[in-house]
Amino acid sequence: MELLIVKDKRIDYDGSAIQSHWTYRNFGILGNSLVVFRGKCDVKVEEMIDIEDLRQNKEIKSDDMVHYIIEVFDFPNVLLASALQKLFMAKLCEVLGDYGIKTIRKGDDIYVNGRKLSISIATVSPVSIKIHIGINVEAKGIPEGVEAIGLKELGIEDIGGFMEKTGKALVEEFKKVKKDSLKVRWAS
Amino acid sequence: MELLIVKDKRIDYDGSAIQSHWTYRNFGILGNSLVVFRGKCDVKVEEMIDIEDLRQNKEIKSDDMVHYIIEVFDFPNVLLASALQKLFMAKLCEVLGDYGIKTIRKGDDIYVNGRKLSISIATVSPVSIKIHIGINVEAKGIPEGVEAIGLKELGIEDIGGFMEKTGKALVEEFKKVKKDSLKVRWAS
Amino acid sequence: MELLIVKDKRIDYDGSAIQSHWTYRNFGILGNSLVVFRGKCDVKVEEMIDIEDLRQNKEIKSDDMVHYIIEVFDFPNVLLASALQKLFMAKLCEVLGDYGIKTIRKGDDIYVNGRKLSISIATVSPVSIKIHIGINVEAKGIPEGVEAIGLKELGIEDIGGFMEKTGKALVEEFKKVKKDSLKVRWAS
Amino acid sequence: MELLIVKDKRIDYDGSAIQSHWTYRNFGILGNSLVVFRGKCDVKVEEMIDIEDLRQNKEIKSDDMVHYIIEVFDFPNVLLASALQKLFMAKLCEVLGDYGIKTIRKGDDIYVNGRKLSISIATVSPVSIKIHIGINVEAKGIPEGVEAIGLKELGIEDIGGFMEKTGKALVEEFKKVKKDSLKVRWAS
Amino acid sequence: MELLIVKDKRIDYDGSAIQSHWTYRNFGILGNSLVVFRGKCDVKVEEMIDIEDLRQNKEIKSDDMVHYIIEVFDFPNVLLASALQKLFMAKLCEVLGDYGIKTIRKGDDIYVNGRKLSISIATVSPVSIKIHIGINVEAKGIPEGVEAIGLKELGIEDIGGFMEKTGKALVEEFKKVKKDSLKVRWAS
Amino acid sequence: MELLIVKDKRIDYDGSAIQSHWTYRNFGILGNSLVVFRGKCDVKVEEMIDIEDLRQNKEIKSDDMVHYIIEVFDFPNVLLASALQKLFMAKLCEVLGDYGIKTIRKGDDIYVNGRKLSISIATVSPVSIKIHIGINVEAKGIPEGVEAIGLKELGIEDIGGFMEKTGKALVEEFKKVKKDSLKVRWAS
Repeated sequence: MELLIVKDKRIDYDGSAIQSHWTYRNFGILGNSLVVFRGKCDVKVEEMIDIEDLRQNKEIKSDDMVHYIIEVFDFPNVLLASALQKLFMAKLCEVLGDYGIKTIRKGDDIYVNGRKLSISIATVSPVSIKIHIGINVEAKGIPEGVEAIGLKELGIEDIGGFMEKTGKALVEEFKKVKKDSLKVRWAS
Repeated sequence: MELLIVKDKRIDYDGSAIQSHWTYRNFGILGNSLVVFRGKCDVKVEEMIDIEDLRQNKEIKSDDMVHYIIEVFDFPNVLLASALQKLFMAKLCEVLGDYGIKTIRKGDDIYVNGRKLSISIATVSPVSIKIHIGINVEAKGIPEGVEAIGLKELGIEDIGGFMEKTGKALVEEFKKVKKDSLKVRWAS
Repeated sequence: MELLIVKDKRIDYDGSAIQSHWTYRNFGILGNSLVVFRGKCDVKVEEMIDIEDLRQNKEIKSDDMVHYIIEVFDFPNVLLASALQKLFMAKLCEVLGDYGIKTIRKGDDIYVNGRKLSISIATVSPVSIKIHIGINVEAKGIPEGVEAIGLKELGIEDIGGFMEKTGKALVEEFKKVKKDSLKVRWAS
Repeated sequence: MELLIVKDKRIDYDGSAIQSHWTYRNFGILGNSLVVFRGKCDVKVEEMIDIEDLRQNKEIKSDDMVHYIIEVFDFPNVLLASALQKLFMAKLCEVLGDYGIKTIRKGDDIYVNGRKLSISIATVSPVSIKIHIGINVEAKGIPEGVEAIGLKELGIEDIGGFMEKTGKALVEEFKKVKKDSLKVRWAS
Repeated sequence: MELLIVKDKRIDYDGSAIQSHWTYRNFGILGNSLVVFRGKCDVKVEEMIDIEDLRQNKEIKSDDMVHYIIEVFDFPNVLLASALQKLFMAKLCEVLGDYGIKTIRKGDDIYVNGRKLSISIATVSPVSIKIHIGINVEAKGIPEGVEAIGLKELGIEDIGGFMEKTGKALVEEFKKVKKDSLKVRWAS
Repeated sequence: MELLIVKDKRIDYDGSAIQSHWTYRNFGILGNSLVVFRGKCDVKVEEMIDIEDLRQNKEIKSDDMVHYIIEVFDFPNVLLASALQKLFMAKLCEVLGDYGIKTIRKGDDIYVNGRKLSISIATVSPVSIKIHIGINVEAKGIPEGVEAIGLKELGIEDIGGFMEKTGKALVEEFKKVKKDSLKVRWAS
């Protein structure tokens, strides 16, 4: 899994990055990848993946987020997509723990002091698994009714450093998953 | 995923429970399942799954462990096996956190204060994913050279309660993984 | 497999219900499902799934049908889709036999006295198997050239009862298929 | 799917024919196949596939049966194995209906007048789906406690003719399943 | 794999033939197939499959080509698509060798004397593998900057004969791949 | 795909290297791999993979061969195994062409002047694809009735150089197959 951390510019997330090969099309990176970038979040209805959100007419937006776009080509299965997503969320919580921040993870949501820090979706395209994770930098521009929190309110000011630390941690986690899958004999 | 917590007897783990349908053969439970039980651990060489261990002639044993045997039939893929395993380990760390215990997870290993609390393996049979997790109740009967720690040394005396709490937490985690995999539209 | 029998309203079938997650989007039911409803049938060309029909410019319509929309997420494979479809058609014939009606099944078509009682299609989306079955309530509004027959002409007047009986029978059949798939060891 | 009807000799079924490539090894037939033969049935414990039977120490035997061994290589999935098996049983019931015999199918079991006519198992090897079906020619040598019936008691004396008629019917059914799986466009 | 060689008319290739079921829709051929035809090549941007080409704004065109459209339904996997494509290219080189022409194959490209003879793409639809191969009849209408060569410049004047010889050779190669996949037992 | 060329010792091939994880167990190489080594060939009957050979009681042996053991974990499918095998054989022929040797490939067999240069088998384990290729160094110790030829008779004396050149060529070929599978968008 190749890691790309985009630091020289902001990229807004409108949901289109969830499509297959977005990373290859935009950055020329072939195969499994994680792109970390920073920008607004405002997901267009036609790009919404979570049908639960669609059914409830939820808005998905935030003025400033760290975004993670993961694509895994090993095989496009929704259960693997969902399991990897939860694992990545748990890993992010572990990294936040290293910052001294106590989190509560509920599936693919991270809460701090009862306030929502993150959004995430995991699905498949016909050729790959795609996962988006967004973490509020500041709790601004959030849909009404959502009690949110952001990294800055948690004392994390070096967003670039956070992007690097978490990006590396997620890639290491995936590599460990992959490596371990190769070193075991099958059971009868 | 059906949960069975065996409280009325001890069951020793010799590695044979990693075979497919062990839970159905022994407890009549069909389909995805988690069995939690307590007993010794002494894995026979012919049941060892981790080829890295085999190559290094490692022993896998402990005098008293809480064991988790998970079987998932959705599809037998080693990457999914490995991802679910890591997610379950992360969940166990989160539960240990609820007990006030600070853990470090390295892939599928849990450490407390630099000492190893757990063992685990994840693989596939031709029809299912199989995962074993073992958590030391006491750090006794551990192979030489391994700095180990057990639940009792961490202040957890109610092992039955721990088995229930963790068993339920792992099943809930899996159910969330499964549920979320069903509510997302595919991406193009 | 969850069963929903829509009795309080008519729903016309224009082919769009063959898309993935139609049941979740419209009824909030997650996972494997069977929805039984009653309404007209007039499949739009752009929703036609059977390329043989498209090649022959066939019309698919009927003024009054009992419809079954099945979605199975276990894995999206056209051979499984097609096998399940034939099995469901055979089951419907068995239920019709319980009504004292002698049927002839040719693949996915049911005939009574040489007249066509049903239509059906089975395919996959990128995340699921989708099957539609339609059974004429009355042989009205059928494309020219098709000798059709309906439930009422066969003496079945309690259409609601028929929807329940068949809905339950199909779900039971699927559950048996699933259950049996879990209780067998693999062969070498 | 190639059909072989063995008429020139008896072949007893001890369960070993459920292994992959049995048909190729013994008859040189490559790929999807159905072999129909006649002989005793006495399944050795080590060849038993149904763990439910194993758990209950059931015997599987009969003095004279028509046997069907099906192998499908398209992909080795237990749900497809189980669905195809039920479809084949339903087809056999339809053929028995053509003989004027009224059957009741319960999943993969055929009953006539409350007495059991058949046995069956469906599973996978690592490369194929394997299905065995056995139909009593006479209800002799059946395990105690099983109320059985055979073809001869149902008035079917021409066992060779029955083997041909049913063999062809099952192969036609599979070919229809396969053909239909190829003529449908995918749904979004 | 069924072979169709279209000799009575020209068919231009604009990229749309890469869609699933193109062969069934246009020629009524069900299942695995190879269609060989002759015509211009001018791939519309919206039909371009190779994202590398899209990223570089490459044009894909030629005034006169022999085209091969292959569809394989066994299972839609990009690695199998890519492996079969390379094998077919290698086979074409072997046939060209029979004509006395020395080729260099680089992956899916064929060169003669450093000049490009062919284009090709392999991908999946949600239900099948699709491969397109085009071989220049004459090196005319080629995008600027591409040093191309055609069959006529290599002394092959009987294009119809070439279409037949290569069409048969590719189908034979696939049949051998398939046959061999069925005659091997699995390894532990 | 990692390449290991064993030059410091001879390794005889008795067929056991076809088992999964042979390379990891013996050389510690995780994941897709190609091991090239030199030694006798004498395949034990219980390790024979080709059922056609077993049916004909064929012997598989040679006094001196270059062996290639390939393992691919992407997914264990016999059609992909067989396609990759043929592609590797074609690539070996292309390399032999670079040596000025004219070969005829028939599926997975290489002939020079009507004499057999190679043996090969491709299959799956429950977790991987396994391919063995053997090329005679000298045509000695070959089963009676087989007209064989070896590299030395073809003028290739630098066997170590041949092992390197072919090993690198096969790995490059696989990498190209893999890379191309990742750069194409899916077709509708």
